[in-house]
Amino acid sequence: MANSKYEYVRAFEHDDNLLPNTWIVVRIDGRGFHRFSDRYKFQKPNDERALNLMNAAACAVVRDLPDLIIAYGVSDEYSKLVTTIVSTFTAHYVYLWPSFFPTPLEPEFLPSFDGRAVQYPSVRNLRDYMSWRQADCHINNLYNTTFWSLILRGGMSNTEAENRLQGTVSGDKNEILFSQFGINYNNEPEMYKKGSVVFRDYEIKPQTEKNDGGTSSKEGDFDTGEEGPPSEMSKSQIAKLRKMQKKATVVIRHVDIIKDEFWEQRPWILSNKPGKLPAVD
Amino acid sequence: MANSKYEYVRAFEHDDNLLPNTWIVVRIDGRGFHRFSDRYKFQKPNDERALNLMNAAACAVVRDLPDLIIAYGVSDEYSKLVTTIVSTFTAHYVYLWPSFFPTPLEPEFLPSFDGRAVQYPSVRNLRDYMSWRQADCHINNLYNTTFWSLILRGGMSNTEAENRLQGTVSGDKNEILFSQFGINYNNEPEMYKKGSVVFRDYEIKPQTEKNDGGTSSKEGDFDTGEEGPPSEMSKSQIAKLRKMQKKATVVIRHVDIIKDEFWEQRPWILSNKPGKLPAVD
Amino acid sequence: MANSKYEYVRAFEHDDNLLPNTWIVVRIDGRGFHRFSDRYKFQKPNDERALNLMNAAACAVVRDLPDLIIAYGVSDEYSKLVTTIVSTFTAHYVYLWPSFFPTPLEPEFLPSFDGRAVQYPSVRNLRDYMSWRQADCHINNLYNTTFWSLILRGGMSNTEAENRLQGTVSGDKNEILFSQFGINYNNEPEMYKKGSVVFRDYEIKPQTEKNDGGTSSKEGDFDTGEEGPPSEMSKSQIAKLRKMQKKATVVIRHVDIIKDEFWEQRPWILSNKPGKLPAVD
Amino acid sequence: MANSKYEYVRAFEHDDNLLPNTWIVVRIDGRGFHRFSDRYKFQKPNDERALNLMNAAACAVVRDLPDLIIAYGVSDEYSKLVTTIVSTFTAHYVYLWPSFFPTPLEPEFLPSFDGRAVQYPSVRNLRDYMSWRQADCHINNLYNTTFWSLILRGGMSNTEAENRLQGTVSGDKNEILFSQFGINYNNEPEMYKKGSVVFRDYEIKPQTEKNDGGTSSKEGDFDTGEEGPPSEMSKSQIAKLRKMQKKATVVIRHVDIIKDEFWEQRPWILSNKPGKLPAVD
Repeated sequence: MANSKYEYVRAFEHDDNLLPNTWIVVRIDGRGFHRFSDRYKFQKPNDERALNLMNAAACAVVRDLPDLIIAYGVSDEYSKLVTTIVSTFTAHYVYLWPSFFPTPLEPEFLPSFDGRAVQYPSVRNLRDYMSWRQADCHINNLYNTTFWSLILRGGMSNTEAENRLQGTVSGDKNEILFSQFGINYNNEPEMYKKGSVVFRDYEIKPQTEKNDGGTSSKEGDFDTGEEGPPSEMSKSQIAKLRKMQKKATVVIRHVDIIKDEFWEQRPWILSNKPGKLPAVD
Repeated sequence: MANSKYEYVRAFEHDDNLLPNTWIVVRIDGRGFHRFSDRYKFQKPNDERALNLMNAAACAVVRDLPDLIIAYGVSDEYSKLVTTIVSTFTAHYVYLWPSFFPTPLEPEFLPSFDGRAVQYPSVRNLRDYMSWRQADCHINNLYNTTFWSLILRGGMSNTEAENRLQGTVSGDKNEILFSQFGINYNNEPEMYKKGSVVFRDYEIKPQTEKNDGGTSSKEGDFDTGEEGPPSEMSKSQIAKLRKMQKKATVVIRHVDIIKDEFWEQRPWILSNKPGKLPAVD
Repeated sequence: MANSKYEYVRAFEHDDNLLPNTWIVVRIDGRGFHRFSDRYKFQKPNDERALNLMNAAACAVVRDLPDLIIAYGVSDEYSKLVTTIVSTFTAHYVYLWPSFFPTPLEPEFLPSFDGRAVQYPSVRNLRDYMSWRQADCHINNLYNTTFWSLILRGGMSNTEAENRLQGTVSGDKNEILFSQFGINYNNEPEMYKKGSVVFRDYEIKPQTEKNDGGTSSKEGDFDTGEEGPPSEMSKSQIAKLRKMQKKATVVIRHVDIIKDEFWEQRPWILSNKPGKLPAVD
Repeated sequence: MANSKYEYVRAFEHDDNLLPNTWIVVRIDGRGFHRFSDRYKFQKPNDERALNLMNAAACAVVRDLPDLIIAYGVSDEYSKLVTTIVSTFTAHYVYLWPSFFPTPLEPEFLPSFDGRAVQYPSVRNLRDYMSWRQADCHINNLYNTTFWSLILRGGMSNTEAENRLQGTVSGDKNEILFSQFGINYNNEPEMYKKGSVVFRDYEIKPQTEKNDGGTSSKEGDFDTGEEGPPSEMSKSQIAKLRKMQKKATVVIRHVDIIKDEFWEQRPWILSNKPGKLPAVD
């Protein structure tokens, strides 16, 4: 064949397989979003339209890629997984833009994203990762809310606001917000304080027996991690599972994901098995 | 700090640095484009609008990411590089769609892409990779042109066309095209036969002295690979280089990239140094 | 500094960290051991001295590298871990050789080994890996015992023996051994049938309550995998742990490691905590 | 088959191929050699027997592993390559010990080594790596020679010697050695000042035409890097090459490897082709 002489270059490619039986977290970050949000005049400290657009794109990604929720236990090629998710996210973000913003996008200022995958071997590691992100979200939002109140309503410059907040703890910031601006931080929108979780929604598990957190968390873990090799699920079982997952509504929630309650009520998330579809959505 | 307890999860992230001083090729593939091209009724065997849209998106990516041409010698994080390119490509593809197709995109059928990076240590390896792709393009296009002529103009079914082409060599396909359909394959559009190369355009180097291919290729290689560590270029030099690169027009060409001529006339591509801007574009 | 000009080459090194919180299995293989065992006239199908030498070297490695048993949860650099284990194994193998073989080693025929690390995220995966190796050991040893009986006692050539065993199942081989050579395979040495496990020995856990395998296996898993991040163990706790581990005897056993019993009786292996030192060894 | 149920664990293994067509440097480090050299009373600052033993082991490794010199352009599995080299080195080190030291090795104090591979895409990178190591060797040896002279002959404590050398440059150390101890550093053994290079020896290339360093270095590079894909060498060519390499003597030299001369006179090292065997060795 004419091109066989060049085909040796295939040897330069290498597998970048992910380790099976781990929880794969794909993080997506906006590229140059400081400049981007300036260009399209995002509101400070939080632009509701921009957050809702992110959430809508995230929902669409979960809807488009059914593997996303059953990612646990799935071995896949690293770059393919990550680039597919980032590309799908980008496509929906650009496509949905006009539903959230009146200004049309300009070709020189298109949004773009980068992403990377991290693997967590146990449910404990995964939940600690999620807890870390939510704790971070709270800390950053309290800071930003106070910072922009000092600027937009207190008339401070950026530097003055920075200096004012230097060395303050959470209580101090709550106090500034309340005494200077009459803001009770607890009444701020949940989306800003807790971030957004996107998942397939099934019927919430009734908490009939009173579980103490520790034990049920243990059992939750066992169910997901130790039920045997993924290969034991047959192709028809997987097909059936996907069908059920497609029927489920993908929802956006702004709730506490650090405590056990969220996970206990939604066992389908960590168990990798669809729940019962809710009678009423 | 409140969230320090969870921060240990950072240890699960790992660097995925690319090897410095290599040529990094990022390949982008459309995901499920068979179904996608059906949905939007792409013409067979080549849809000019679809190819032009791909090229326009590729041009936009090269324009947006100045590092792309000076990728040689640049160390970067693997996932960030690949996802950025794929995301930028996707954003432009969705954004530019209405300029090429009358049908609007539907949210359930958005285009998406995956990508991966491969590293080639020498110019020879890089050029062999490019040659491989162009040889492949020719072979596939000759097959597809004949296959779809047999179906669309010869009235064959898919299976009949497949059987007819089984075991044929290039000469046979040329003969079928010419004798059955009056098509001289050589007159087919260059874009279909050779594919598209996208690069920054400078003034073509005059071929004053007659180089034999071998020698000049050697020199070309040396200049790029062995001029010393990348760190020797100062920040101001890099800034100046980027400025010149931004002024250059990004062009699309459908030319032979297997022979030496293409590379010899455009030394700026492998030398990683901008050329002279052409007097007339 | 005089050599700073060259130091940029450091950028070519890259981290190859192992994923934390996984079970790391390092497999060691003899290189060219077919030729090696011919040279030093190893007995077929099993040479007891050679196996005992391997075991002695393995014991020494476990003794020298206290991290080996608490490998779980430890993040380490891939190459350093693997090469250290292989090098330590080789040093003891060469050093111990005269205690097991009368022929001295010759410089042109020194033993050497290669190794690689594989990571398993859960206890289930780890135990399945161990079960796989032991099942493999049994199958290979039954084959080899029959094969060499046919040759050494049945007078067959290699090819005749191969043909005789083609398509036979375990029962057939047992029957050949018994009817032709009066060998009851069950009476063969345990070391040949089950392989060797090397571990630190503590007081066997009394099986007071009758556990059904499933449940206890679950608990065993939970204890090891989910007790929180490794960083929660203080330096002094780790030092104490190492001290206790150094006191423990490293033993070689040829027992069933597929069933739960082995693991249930020795909870210190999967729990990563030293047990009680046995009153009498 | 009985063990098929467990075989899924194979999916946890992953390829760790090295990038083809690069120079692979495997670095070997003694583990805990501070303690080791104390135990066996190595002389300070340099123990000639210990260095000769290292060199003898290195020679044996080059002799045992013919791929080592034709490593360039060879694709191999990372862990296998590195562990094999480290294991072979360890085996020879332990085996050769009695030829260099009167004290026998003790089982609790066996030497062991770790190793890692780094890849360099170009001859320039490789030579800069080697230059870096040799420049480092010189700087360290000058420091150590002065440091131990101050202690062993000047009667200083470790701390006093450290303080004395704080902030000194090369000239200061030369002056201390000469004026205080009558040592002309230039007369110190070449092995201490330059380190040791181990390679296959062929007939030195006569320097008939006067090359300027730059040009010949360029050509040297081209020959090795750009002569086409490694796959173009036939199996019989490789076999012939290995045969010639086995005939060559492996030598130890303590010479300048920073300047071009060493490499120009021994073109077989970077060209990956055996030279002419010297008439007289």
